[in-house]
Amino acid sequence: MARAWHLMNRPQGLPTDEDFALKDVDLPPVGEGMLRVRNQWLSVDPYMRGRMNDVKSYVPPFQLGQPMDGGAIGEVIESKADGFAAGDLVQHMAGWRDEAVIDARTANKLPNLGAAPELFLGVLGVTGLTAYFGLLDAASAKEGDIVFVSAAAGAVGSVVVQIAKAKGMTVIGSAGGPDKCDFVRSLGADKVVDYKAGPILKGLAAAAPDGIDVYFDNVGGDHLDAAFALARQNARFAICGMIEGYNDPTPPSFRFIMRTIAMRIRLKGFIVFDYFPRMAEFYGEMGPWVANGTVKSRETVVDGLEAAPDAFRGLFSGANTGKMLIRL
Amino acid sequence: MARAWHLMNRPQGLPTDEDFALKDVDLPPVGEGMLRVRNQWLSVDPYMRGRMNDVKSYVPPFQLGQPMDGGAIGEVIESKADGFAAGDLVQHMAGWRDEAVIDARTANKLPNLGAAPELFLGVLGVTGLTAYFGLLDAASAKEGDIVFVSAAAGAVGSVVVQIAKAKGMTVIGSAGGPDKCDFVRSLGADKVVDYKAGPILKGLAAAAPDGIDVYFDNVGGDHLDAAFALARQNARFAICGMIEGYNDPTPPSFRFIMRTIAMRIRLKGFIVFDYFPRMAEFYGEMGPWVANGTVKSRETVVDGLEAAPDAFRGLFSGANTGKMLIRL
Repeated sequence: MARAWHLMNRPQGLPTDEDFALKDVDLPPVGEGMLRVRNQWLSVDPYMRGRMNDVKSYVPPFQLGQPMDGGAIGEVIESKADGFAAGDLVQHMAGWRDEAVIDARTANKLPNLGAAPELFLGVLGVTGLTAYFGLLDAASAKEGDIVFVSAAAGAVGSVVVQIAKAKGMTVIGSAGGPDKCDFVRSLGADKVVDYKAGPILKGLAAAAPDGIDVYFDNVGGDHLDAAFALARQNARFAICGMIEGYNDPTPPSFRFIMRTIAMRIRLKGFIVFDYFPRMAEFYGEMGPWVANGTVKSRETVVDGLEAAPDAFRGLFSGANTGKMLIRL
Repeated sequence: MARAWHLMNRPQGLPTDEDFALKDVDLPPVGEGMLRVRNQWLSVDPYMRGRMNDVKSYVPPFQLGQPMDGGAIGEVIESKADGFAAGDLVQHMAGWRDEAVIDARTANKLPNLGAAPELFLGVLGVTGLTAYFGLLDAASAKEGDIVFVSAAAGAVGSVVVQIAKAKGMTVIGSAGGPDKCDFVRSLGADKVVDYKAGPILKGLAAAAPDGIDVYFDNVGGDHLDAAFALARQNARFAICGMIEGYNDPTPPSFRFIMRTIAMRIRLKGFIVFDYFPRMAEFYGEMGPWVANGTVKSRETVVDGLEAAPDAFRGLFSGANTGKMLIRL
């Protein structure tokens, strides 16, 4: 019998235990063009919080009383689809559960880049793709730029730091607490600001006395306002996530947003899905970087399907360093 | 004896009478390369409020106890510069006064476009240039777009409305009160929202049931937040002025800024100065539009140098329809 995490209530603020239930599910028969997969790794990501609300967005909301989904790596147990055989490892979207029957068109066989399977949920997956195109396309970051990355110890942020260094940029990362700051420093960041040690505006002003050219925003709120305050002329912001606002209904306020005009700031929101057609370009540069150690992967791994809700909530309290993964 | 308005105090909020003084000034002799001009028209513009603060920005602050400056049209009374003769009409930056001696390199002879001189402070001047390049370059607006323009009865906004219509866009303008709304309608706007009649978010949602592709922001605050709320995918915002914030120290808050991500919004601050090198391109399209009536000019004219501070303050209370000018 397969088991899947169901959404039982629309959470108010941070989700509670009562908002989720792990329940048995009947799997349909494996029809033509379908695969049965046994999951080995599950991804939990901040964007899933948005799907727990009943709000139309770029991905549809989770349905109440139904299984949730999300990124996963699984092994094919049974295949009735051309090009897939038992034993293949695939990346697919039927996460939050241990087994699933899926349409083979929604599954991708892991490419042979010599990397551990779980990396395809991280540096070589959507996380890495987000970092890569957010930095290089949405923010048009280039060699010589001074780049500020918030949540630099997080899944996306830690990859942004490394790509920026690989491309010859100066990097300032923010993270919460000395351990995470040390981690960000170990990734090659030139300066690290501990946002728990004082106001981020003050910390960023000290770390970036000449201002910033690029801001990779994972956080919103005070971090974004500090970036407005320190932006240099023609600064470019990639708006990737505003995690501070996901569980907090208070509208964020911005003292320095008016600098958008004087500094000609360009701010661009983006969704990683838009870059899926450019996956080959991404693998072409990121594959070698991962293979030769230019970009290192760091995961926070929790074990067992039961731990998924705690792992998810941990994203909002900074429980993860690097990518948060569940190992089944 | 020439007279000029001096800045006497750094205003707190909206400037008061005590912040300005009209004083006699001695004009220097007309040296080599200089012009003596007698002003006929003066411009007052919202951006001048920023120059009254002691804050480094894209234009230097006005100096305390010194004459202010700004856009003006004057007649050359005496010339010691090649290419200028008595009787020439010039556009220059020695406004807020009746006469001035200026470096001829800071003066532009009005081009012969068959237009009244004061239009070179409005639709054919910095105002028109702001509207033109803000809409077409900063916001990349194109035929078929649904365009929302705030302060659409104002100097810049009223020109944006007309250019957008000339280029085949659908236009929604906001303005305060029935008279201004009628004016915006007379410019060709497809829908007009009276922001004094109710929350702008509600008004915009009703006027733009399919959302907006472009927002030309002259206002900031609730208007900008409403634009975030109604933006369609790949919406583009040109951030031109945030007049709501010029006299108000409360940081604006945004309930819908997070839609930047889902809708891939691009937001671009710009300064009209950056487009001065493209003046010929602007004249080439705008000159004929003004000549054939596609773009109409509307001014609110006050008479006499004494009226300048009131005219300036009126910009923030909506006293002007179209461009605010002082006739000497």
